[in-house]
Amino acid sequence: MTSIVVLSGGVGGARFLRGLRAHLADAPGSAPGGPASALGLPDSSRDLAATAPDSATVTAVVNTGDDMWLSGVRIAPDLDSIMYTLAGENDEVRGWGRVGESERVSSELRAYGIGWPWFTLGDLDIGTHLARTALLRDGQTLTQATARITSRWPLGVRLLPVTDSEVETHVVVEPDDAAEGRSSMHFQEWWTRHRASLPARAFVQHGLESTTATPEVISAIVDADVILVAPSNPVVSIGTILGIPGVREAMAASAAPIVGVSPIIGGAVVRGMADACLSAIGVPTAADAVARHYGARADGGLLDGWLIDEVDASLAPGIEESGIPTRVAPLWMTDVARSARLAGTALDFVRELRARA
Amino acid sequence: MTSIVVLSGGVGGARFLRGLRAHLADAPGSAPGGPASALGLPDSSRDLAATAPDSATVTAVVNTGDDMWLSGVRIAPDLDSIMYTLAGENDEVRGWGRVGESERVSSELRAYGIGWPWFTLGDLDIGTHLARTALLRDGQTLTQATARITSRWPLGVRLLPVTDSEVETHVVVEPDDAAEGRSSMHFQEWWTRHRASLPARAFVQHGLESTTATPEVISAIVDADVILVAPSNPVVSIGTILGIPGVREAMAASAAPIVGVSPIIGGAVVRGMADACLSAIGVPTAADAVARHYGARADGGLLDGWLIDEVDASLAPGIEESGIPTRVAPLWMTDVARSARLAGTALDFVRELRARA
Repeated sequence: MTSIVVLSGGVGGARFLRGLRAHLADAPGSAPGGPASALGLPDSSRDLAATAPDSATVTAVVNTGDDMWLSGVRIAPDLDSIMYTLAGENDEVRGWGRVGESERVSSELRAYGIGWPWFTLGDLDIGTHLARTALLRDGQTLTQATARITSRWPLGVRLLPVTDSEVETHVVVEPDDAAEGRSSMHFQEWWTRHRASLPARAFVQHGLESTTATPEVISAIVDADVILVAPSNPVVSIGTILGIPGVREAMAASAAPIVGVSPIIGGAVVRGMADACLSAIGVPTAADAVARHYGARADGGLLDGWLIDEVDASLAPGIEESGIPTRVAPLWMTDVARSARLAGTALDFVRELRARA
Repeated sequence: MTSIVVLSGGVGGARFLRGLRAHLADAPGSAPGGPASALGLPDSSRDLAATAPDSATVTAVVNTGDDMWLSGVRIAPDLDSIMYTLAGENDEVRGWGRVGESERVSSELRAYGIGWPWFTLGDLDIGTHLARTALLRDGQTLTQATARITSRWPLGVRLLPVTDSEVETHVVVEPDDAAEGRSSMHFQEWWTRHRASLPARAFVQHGLESTTATPEVISAIVDADVILVAPSNPVVSIGTILGIPGVREAMAASAAPIVGVSPIIGGAVVRGMADACLSAIGVPTAADAVARHYGARADGGLLDGWLIDEVDASLAPGIEESGIPTRVAPLWMTDVARSARLAGTALDFVRELRARA
């Protein structure tokens, strides 16, 4: 049984995890006909296969820095994006939230003047937030609440919030008129309301000093056979995960190869506005710059290997010179099949790195 | 300016308050054409008059014993029943909740296995609960949160929860199979799930020992010119209000006449299952028995006067003999006009009692 751990943010990580699940469901070495057949599922439902195949388990260590209390409920955008995507309940057109969503509750909240009028919570999504809030109120940890909530669907991936504490990412900005005179704001306000248009001077994780990664996360990382870094925001998603005390130490202690997938293709972010985050920490929006930001594991950094897109092939020699073995592959996850091939390439690369070692 | 205070439970109290507001809007002594005209409102909107007329203010002191945490939110059924009814947003056909309600969120909660499957929260109603929960989470008292929430509509009545503490009514029952072996349950479970069919041995207000009525409630009662007791459940609505430390003392200290309206007509409760509550405390379901339960103010009880329905006219002499002046009037609040006439009769009765004194 191969234990695969994926560090993940929201939407991009969700697509990568869905591809990884699909790849594993079709992988050779599992039951004849593939695990989807073994599970008695029709071929068409492979993408919704009830579990990862016997030959591999997948655990996602998920960013919680975007989480917040809003309108009385605890919101966990990255956990929910992954859950909805793996459940096949995500809105593919809009790119976030639940398919078939409505906004009856939010229009009430607006009428009461409660919450952020520019941050609409869908009715189905509020069901999830209420479930989480109720479980937290009953004394469950976020890890326990997430296990309970995700048990509704056969995700095939275990979702672990990186921490059970409330660590929230805030953005330090110029206190000008656009920022209404404030020198910082919650990441969600900067990202969703201002579309990352206010120049970010820094990202600060509030609550970081009094937190640690959960025991479940530490165990998963230390005991992993493979660790993949999803093509998520290197600053506020992966960066937040790595900043939680205990994560870097666990990564260093793990015998698993660590392979990352570039979230940058051809000098542009694949989704979202990660360039605004990268520039705040002085990292160019480029596949090689992000690799160097993560660093070579041999030099005390994160990566044993790095995947970049074909369009960035010319950057490969330079990244290799920085001590990070690099492989070139198509990175666009435009559908599940392409995402699955990308995941397969990442696992092939891990095998190759292991063979080299 | 006459200050009228009404002790009130949910639906029955809401109808009485709506009638009182309509009566005051049409009352002689206010601006020509009535206060609705004075406020520039068309006649048809009198029932939704923005405020009570200049000549009177109405404050409802509302039972909070039915309140509870459910599915992550704080529910306050009586406050909300009154608010929705005075806002014209109540579902007249169903008899509770918001008109045009839907259940998108609740079906999600059921899918997650969260909350009580037999206690459905409507989507619009959840908007109210989330607003309240968000305000409470921000450190506001229930009194402050209620003022903020009710400011959405021109109710014409100030709603005051009797206490800001979490006092919840539980029902002591036989620990048999029907009660799933439990010897007590929250009032809402007994009332809604079991439809008051499990014999109640007692009603216990949890949290009563460490609470008091709010300063706003004490002031309103002490400074009132008139105190009316709505035709609400004498045990779990009015009984709970009277049980909150400070309320009885304030009533005793107030110079205002206290007139109650019988919730029993012809030996049957007007709405709900109050008979199951009355029998638990050994009070027959009869207009005279409830009057004696409240007691004559002259003898240290509650009432200066009592209104009973015409069908119970024969009980009047007996109640009067108990020291409680009694007036006979039509009590059925089948529409706003009838409710307004009832409220007018109650105020006439107060004037008569004052003239006698």
